[in-house]
Amino acid sequence: MISVKEAERILEKFRFNKTEYVKIEDAYGRVLAEDIISDVDIPRFDRSDIDGYAVTEILDEYVLIDEVFAGDDKDLVIEGNECVLVATGGKVPKNTKYVIPIENTVRVRNKVVVISFDRIEGISKKGCDIKKGETILKKGTLINERNIGVLAGLGIEEIKVYKIPKVGILSTGNELFKMTKDINSKTISSIVKKASCEPIFLGIARDDFNEIKEKIINASEKCDIVVTSGGVSVGKKDFLPRVVDELGEILFHKVKMRPGMPMLFGKVNDKPIFCMPGNVVSCLVCSYMFLLPFLMKMIHRPYRKRIIKAVLSEKIVSEPDFLYLRPVKLKNRIAYPIFKGSNILTSILDADGLGIIRENELEKNEGELIDVWLFD
Amino acid sequence: MISVKEAERILEKFRFNKTEYVKIEDAYGRVLAEDIISDVDIPRFDRSDIDGYAVTEILDEYVLIDEVFAGDDKDLVIEGNECVLVATGGKVPKNTKYVIPIENTVRVRNKVVVISFDRIEGISKKGCDIKKGETILKKGTLINERNIGVLAGLGIEEIKVYKIPKVGILSTGNELFKMTKDINSKTISSIVKKASCEPIFLGIARDDFNEIKEKIINASEKCDIVVTSGGVSVGKKDFLPRVVDELGEILFHKVKMRPGMPMLFGKVNDKPIFCMPGNVVSCLVCSYMFLLPFLMKMIHRPYRKRIIKAVLSEKIVSEPDFLYLRPVKLKNRIAYPIFKGSNILTSILDADGLGIIRENELEKNEGELIDVWLFD
Repeated sequence: MISVKEAERILEKFRFNKTEYVKIEDAYGRVLAEDIISDVDIPRFDRSDIDGYAVTEILDEYVLIDEVFAGDDKDLVIEGNECVLVATGGKVPKNTKYVIPIENTVRVRNKVVVISFDRIEGISKKGCDIKKGETILKKGTLINERNIGVLAGLGIEEIKVYKIPKVGILSTGNELFKMTKDINSKTISSIVKKASCEPIFLGIARDDFNEIKEKIINASEKCDIVVTSGGVSVGKKDFLPRVVDELGEILFHKVKMRPGMPMLFGKVNDKPIFCMPGNVVSCLVCSYMFLLPFLMKMIHRPYRKRIIKAVLSEKIVSEPDFLYLRPVKLKNRIAYPIFKGSNILTSILDADGLGIIRENELEKNEGELIDVWLFD
Repeated sequence: MISVKEAERILEKFRFNKTEYVKIEDAYGRVLAEDIISDVDIPRFDRSDIDGYAVTEILDEYVLIDEVFAGDDKDLVIEGNECVLVATGGKVPKNTKYVIPIENTVRVRNKVVVISFDRIEGISKKGCDIKKGETILKKGTLINERNIGVLAGLGIEEIKVYKIPKVGILSTGNELFKMTKDINSKTISSIVKKASCEPIFLGIARDDFNEIKEKIINASEKCDIVVTSGGVSVGKKDFLPRVVDELGEILFHKVKMRPGMPMLFGKVNDKPIFCMPGNVVSCLVCSYMFLLPFLMKMIHRPYRKRIIKAVLSEKIVSEPDFLYLRPVKLKNRIAYPIFKGSNILTSILDADGLGIIRENELEKNEGELIDVWLFD
């Protein structure tokens, strides 16, 4: 039996670095697996910020020689008293020094007379926003609503991102073929979705060594990560430890925490496998504690526990060297423990977080401050 | 021109109450459109919490008459010195008072001898977790990893949830058919995804009254909400106000905020339509300010701005009655304005939030505290 910290250290060593290309319209929420370096200047040319007349110098009157709309790719030149009407965003002609706002002028055919000089607005110079060769987004950046537009602006259509791992979910237990409902696969798949990964339901296996073994071999071939529930204790029908041991390697079995103590983690076919306890509360707590941060790491996104302090409403007794995670409901910063047993659904239904009683504590008294790890 | 508060009041009146049924394995992240009332007791029967012998009273020795596994639907009865071996989670026989842990007994054929009474564990009584007729989840509840297991436990396969609105996205502007890239549709679709709604790209329309009109009619038929960008000012090529006015109703046009002032909101075919300014920063800021909270409301989920205080690194000047939202980068609780213009991509690329200068303020000085609305 190992401590939670030791278990976390084992999990931390795993990486998932497969990559793929996605179109930028599908890139929201994905993580870049390459640096994005601009191969253009933005603006691509000296660009007018307003609708106005591009001129070489300040004069009272100009001769209009052409017109440029936004997006036009015209290479014009002005000289002396020539001017060009340029729309906002349009490319200004060579030699342009100023753009005189259209509302400060009067135009008669091709003659443009300036009636006021109160506002001469600038030109966005080629490359003033982004320079060619500049690293715009670094590998590891999450694509969001602010930076996706920059990719579009650079004319990038596809980017290299980290793949999203496929997480195979297998429930075990003869009782699931009888009256008992399969709850854990729904809970685990929700944690997988919370981590933005892809859950794959692999069905239910009977408490049978060969059936479980076969299903896990299959899962490890088809998925990047496998998560099972049930059959992980030391009873004669608890086949998971034996299966993982035979197919691969057990990296830890049993963790000093409650609920969730019987959890197992290992490798099969070089894929990580989490074997969660069958009790619903234990399964959920192990999924929060180990699976969620693990999956976030696999998709190259940070995971930070949100922990707040609250006042405990009633005493909780724990045991030495064990981490206790007790579902609590929060109201006005008071934490009400609602744990009624690892197989009682309402132990978690209304919980807002897990009250933490650390390994070096033996109890927390009513009225004491307790750290609460918020679920959302 | 109306204030941001007035605009928000207009938006607040909208609702989206369409519903659909989804399988519970697809229900994560959806919002219940019905109360969930349990039509069963959970446990469904008196359930053993351990592997042990169900007995009617404390005796030294029992006669084993049967065995029950978890999930079995056997209706057994014990009397006198009879006992039944019951697995954890198994249904205990009628008349059971205690379950004696298996490890406290010795068994010889059908004779079970009790060797110690140190631990007589309980039975989870029928309905102790959830009672038949109890309201378990209320309409409006978000399905998450804690409550989805309860649905599974109740044997529910489908639930009624609010539909996710389809948000049609249309970019307008002749320049988008030339050299200029369509940035806004990517930004808007990312905001739509951030709100867990479904973006539908409707392409690009030229600055042409009839083309825009036709595309908006089509969008309003096929989508629940329409968002356009560009063509919303008062120039001769700004057709959106005229189109919305002709097809439906303008509910507001121009808001006292910068960037984002030219924004329009209305109804076409009884569907809400947001017409965002074409400038990339304005479009993003309007999407944060109005579209994101609106969409969250449409999917029946709360939206709360996360606002922190930071020290402003340099003076910002605003104007009376206008809400100024200035992209800032945060470092050690210092807010560095990085706004360089509404059409400069790097004005938002590295921003962590929007510095807020309220309508009754005219400026914020260097070193003053400023509210920063965090993006994430």
